[in-house]
This record gives sequence, C-alpha cells and structure tokens, in this order.
Amino acid sequence: MRKEYLYTPGPVAVPPDVLLKLAEPMYHHRSKRFQTIFSEVNAKLKQVYRTANDIITYTASGSGAMEAAIVNFLSPGDKVITINGGKFGERWVNLAKAYGLVQQEVKIAWGSAPDPKEIETLLAADPSIKAVYTQLVETSTGTLYDVQALGAVVAQTPAIFVVDAISGLAADDIPVDAWQVDVCVAGSQKALMIPPGLSFMSVSEKAWALAEKATLPKFYFDARKARKALAKHDTPYTPAHTLIGALNVSLDMILKETIEAVVARHARLAAAVRAGVAALQLPLYSKRPANALTAIETPGMDAEVIKKELDKDGILVAGGQDEAKGKIIRIAMMGYANDADVMNAVSSLEKVLKRVGYAFTPGAGVAAAQASLLGA
Amino acid sequence: MRKEYLYTPGPVAVPPDVLLKLAEPMYHHRSKRFQTIFSEVNAKLKQVYRTANDIITYTASGSGAMEAAIVNFLSPGDKVITINGGKFGERWVNLAKAYGLVQQEVKIAWGSAPDPKEIETLLAADPSIKAVYTQLVETSTGTLYDVQALGAVVAQTPAIFVVDAISGLAADDIPVDAWQVDVCVAGSQKALMIPPGLSFMSVSEKAWALAEKATLPKFYFDARKARKALAKHDTPYTPAHTLIGALNVSLDMILKETIEAVVARHARLAAAVRAGVAALQLPLYSKRPANALTAIETPGMDAEVIKKELDKDGILVAGGQDEAKGKIIRIAMMGYANDADVMNAVSSLEKVLKRVGYAFTPGAGVAAAQASLLGA
Repeated sequence: MRKEYLYTPGPVAVPPDVLLKLAEPMYHHRSKRFQTIFSEVNAKLKQVYRTANDIITYTASGSGAMEAAIVNFLSPGDKVITINGGKFGERWVNLAKAYGLVQQEVKIAWGSAPDPKEIETLLAADPSIKAVYTQLVETSTGTLYDVQALGAVVAQTPAIFVVDAISGLAADDIPVDAWQVDVCVAGSQKALMIPPGLSFMSVSEKAWALAEKATLPKFYFDARKARKALAKHDTPYTPAHTLIGALNVSLDMILKETIEAVVARHARLAAAVRAGVAALQLPLYSKRPANALTAIETPGMDAEVIKKELDKDGILVAGGQDEAKGKIIRIAMMGYANDADVMNAVSSLEKVLKRVGYAFTPGAGVAAAQASLLGA
Repeated sequence: MRKEYLYTPGPVAVPPDVLLKLAEPMYHHRSKRFQTIFSEVNAKLKQVYRTANDIITYTASGSGAMEAAIVNFLSPGDKVITINGGKFGERWVNLAKAYGLVQQEVKIAWGSAPDPKEIETLLAADPSIKAVYTQLVETSTGTLYDVQALGAVVAQTPAIFVVDAISGLAADDIPVDAWQVDVCVAGSQKALMIPPGLSFMSVSEKAWALAEKATLPKFYFDARKARKALAKHDTPYTPAHTLIGALNVSLDMILKETIEAVVARHARLAAAVRAGVAALQLPLYSKRPANALTAIETPGMDAEVIKKELDKDGILVAGGQDEAKGKIIRIAMMGYANDADVMNAVSSLEKVLKRVGYAFTPGAGVAAAQASLLGA
C-alpha cells in the first residue's frame, strides 16, 4: 500500500474542506455571489499580507504575477537591480532581460542571502534605479532573505521594492507594510493551501505612481485595469473563481489560527527538522535557512538517490536544481503541516539513510526533532 | 427552494465526475503521474481540435491565450487584420493596440459575420500583412463566423490565420487542420466542461516559423519555451495541474461521444432553442446564429428585466453588452447540456414573458422546441 506525503515546495497538501469546496457545482462569476466571495478573499488576503494596499489576483501561476511585477511598473530601458541567489532570482534576471530592462544583477552564492549594505551602495551610486527585485525565500536553496533590512534600504530611495514571496508568504514572516515592501508577489499552491492556478500581487501607492508612467506593453497582467475591476469586486477577465472560492476557505483557516501563529508554527516545525538533520550529521545547504523549506546536504551520497528512495516510501521531497543537483534534498513544510509531518519526514529520512548505508545512530534524528518540538 | 441552472456563456455546468476529480488529494506536478496525465490530455485535445499541431496549455483564462496568440508571432510594427464584430473582436483590437501593431480593423455590425471576400481583398492589397485575427463564435452577439471560408482565403497568403474559438470549440464545428487554422485559442470553462483557469493554443508549422522571428516581448506566455517543455510532457511554470486532471475526465466524455456527435448535439439543441423563441415571436439578434449560444431580442421589453426575472427562478442567462445592453438575452448551451436543458430554458422563458405581460400563446415556445427536438 502506498500512502503519500507531500514535502515538495509547492504544491503542498490541501486541507479536505478546501478540496471539497472545489467539488461544488459550478456557478457564474459575474454575480453577486462571486462579488461577495471575492471581496471577502481580498479583505482576508490583506490580513495575511499585513498590508493596506490593494492586492491583485491573477489567474496564472506565480511566474505570471512575477511578470506582472515587471511590466506594470517599468518602461523599456529602465534600470533595475535583480538579486540572484538561485533559480527564482534567475527568473527575475530572465524577466528583466525579456523586457529590455537595464539590470544590475547582484549574483550571490547559492545558499547565501544578499547583503543589504551592498544594495544600499548600488542604489546610492545611481538614483535613477527604478526597482529592486528579490525573493523572500529562494526556493532552490531554502534561503530566507532579510526583507526587512532590504526594505529599509530601498525605502530611502526613489526605487520600488519588489519581493517574490511565492514560497514564503504565511510560512516565513513578511509584514508587507511594516517592512516597506511595495510589490509583494505570492502563489496559491504554497502556504495558502490551495491548488496551483492563482497568484497575487500587492501594490503600494509608491508603486502605483510608477505604474502611471510605465510603458512596457501589457494586457492580461495589466494591474491598473485589474485595480479598477477590483473596486467593484470583479476581475477584467474570467477568473479561476472556483479556486478563489477554495482560497476563501483556506484563508479562514489561516486567520482563525492568526497569521502570526501560522508563521510561528512554521518556524517551530522547521527548527525541528533542522534539529533532526543536525543530529544525523547532515549539513544545511543554506547559511540562512527559511521556515518554508529546509535544504539538506547529503555528503558522500547522491541526493537524487535519497530522493528516489524516499519516493518509494511515499515521501515526496524535492532534489537540488542546477549546481545543487545531486547535492541536496529539500523538505518543505508549508501550510497544512504539523508535528506529525516533522516526525514522519525525519523518521523516513533515517529509514532511507540506513538503507543506503549511511553511518548514524538510529533514532538520533527523531529524538532531536522531538526534543525541539517539545521545546527541550 | 432555489435550484440553479447555468445558461451563461461560460462558465457552464461541470459534470459531477469532473467536479469530484477536483476534490482528490493534492499531488506533485513534477512527477511521472502528471506527465502521464498531461500527455493523455494533449493527445485528446488534438482529437477535439482535429489537428496534428502542438497545443500549448496555459494556466490563464482565455484572454491570456489570446495575448499569447499576439506576442508569440509578431514584432512591433507588424501589420495585422483584426475582425471586430463584438466584445471579443474588440479584444483582438485592444491587444493589437497594446502591443504596438499596425492594424486594419474590419469593423462589422454587431450580429453580422465578416465577409471572406473583404478579407481576401485586404490581404491581396497588402502582402506584408502578417496575421488575421477573428472569432469562431462572437460571444457578445451569438454569431458564428465562416471560419472555413476565411481559412481558405488566408491560407493563400503569407499571413497566419488566428481564431478565438473560446466559446466555440466542441459546440460549433472547427476542424482546425481541415479549415487551415494556424492558431486556435480555446478556454476550459466552455464546452470543454471544466472550471475556468486553463486556456489552449494550437500552433501550425506556418505559425511556428513566424514565432522564430517574432520579437514582441514575452515570458509567461512564451510558446516556444512551452513547446520544448511539452515534448517532455511538462510545462515551463507550475501548471494548474488539478484542472488538467479534471480536463482529462471531461475530454474522455467528449471523445466517448465523439467530437462530431458532440457538435451535432449542440447544433440540435441550439436549433430547438431557436424554434422555441421563433414561436414566441422573439427575433434572433444574430444573422448567423451559433450553436454555442443564442442571442434573443426582447422587443418592447427591457432585456435586463427579463434576465433578472429568469434569475429569480434560478435560470441564469447573460444579458447584452455595450450597444446590445437591454436589448438581448443570451442563452448558452455548451458542454454538459441535453434536451431537458432546452425545455427548461424555453419553458422558463415563457413563464417570465407571461409575468412581464408579453402577449403570446402559452406553450407555443415549448411545443415548437419539442417539435424541433423530435425532428418534426
């Protein structure tokens, strides 16, 4: 019998009540019923984002909202800073290239986080820089960036601060307004606990002012058009409204727990995973590990083999990409996750480590994880 | 008790088996399981499109795929013909404007269909025209365009022929290859019988050749990147894979019935609706009515009132847009529809007509619809 557990960094497990919502009979999206749901979702999303800014909902995966965060605020030839510490930083770089922007790419080693001082220096040297693009969590390395410090730096300049929080929102802390994030992008299939298909973008007044002058071509992702529709609890194009209905349910779960408690739960689970793998003498890949996912090195072993062995037991984790391929596995705890998920992940990892002949004390990982969970 | 029936031109009713598929536990999209489903869906979509061309699946609503049909094939300043006979023709016009194309807009009266001879003349006069954009069914007017004749005209020229078949595919006939359609766009929430969130675009070799030279900026909708991933049964960005799984079920339903029989069923249902409203002395708005939906004039009555009264009875139809607002109601029969849906729609319309004081012989509409269904 195969019993499957999702530890992949999105999509993640969707709670049963949310799944059942998706099986409800179809209804029309140009209706009071949808307007009510959409206005509820928007109010709740603002609480999760901790922002007073409008949040645009796109029927698209996260990369669609990342494109929106480029085309809505810039004009051809505009200067931007892109922070590239992994696959998703690289996505900002590729987006900036695709749209003919002049970019200063701040390339950092995989597993490391950007230095806010370096960004400060770059911004000071060129006041014509229009935007800084970064991640909250770089999913390819499991690294948490210091968005608060970066936000404080960018806020002193004319540039807008754009954060891809697709993997991070509701797993790692990002109080959008307090941390001066002008544009914050998120996705549906991570800690928001619904299937893929929706993405989100909050927009500050500083960013809207830039949007007024931005001439990059756009249509489907036009945020100003979406903002006008939003005022009437509507969307410019047919939305994936059944996913929005599902989100209304998952947001209720998050807000009932409170966003602060949800983030604290993720912090607690991730700390336990880290304690477990430390006891197994497996190093962390990241110098600044995130809550959302933990990237674990597998010294002397092919991480792809570990991943495949875990898969045989129904434990789905991600491997490494590009330069990290074969070197790491990534275990995500996002959204619908609790202590049992930690114990299952760490004990399953022990089982596989034994199978591949890795030398360790059986039970050391789970004991350490459990001690961490019990606050010992 | 409210019992609701969807006659809106998308989203339409989703079959229960498809809805239940959406309630299945989440799984990872970077997996053999998804690759298998996606390759099945792609093979089945080709049968529904009746094409040998690759079909790109976008996580986006139909307008997203329409944008893809612009940005992937053209360069700034390229000349195109856009056919505008309603709200969705207007969408091609607005897209062409947003992307800086030089367009010859062929504006036709709402409710009428374009004259293939006129398009032939325009193309002959300027061999530098790169593409012709049209609809199969103009949803705002319920009009079916002669895609076969238009395709024959465009095929003689260097231009590609791009058809928005969002409302039409699987309701009105469009054998894509036989009718020489280079790019055919469709949406998930119409006759394909799943919720909104996916759209599709088939691409001929003639169009791929144009794509090689197209310089309009693009990223999320980049079809060449999607084609590369498609060869590995994958997508460049996280797909709405649960919707793709649902589509796999609804496509089975369509192919079991056969695409030809599905289109014939739509033709039969639409003919019965037209017979019913003719017996009620209500004129059709369109000179060339589609199967997908029927636009009905309400002379001497405010169509918005008729629509609202129908809504009170749980019968959801669409009203008119822009110049047709208040003049028409639109009754769609797309996808999961049969004789009972016709009888329900026509009898409900009679009920409301009586309520608003319209003079007609009670039962005349349903008798005529039934006679049509029985082939009398």
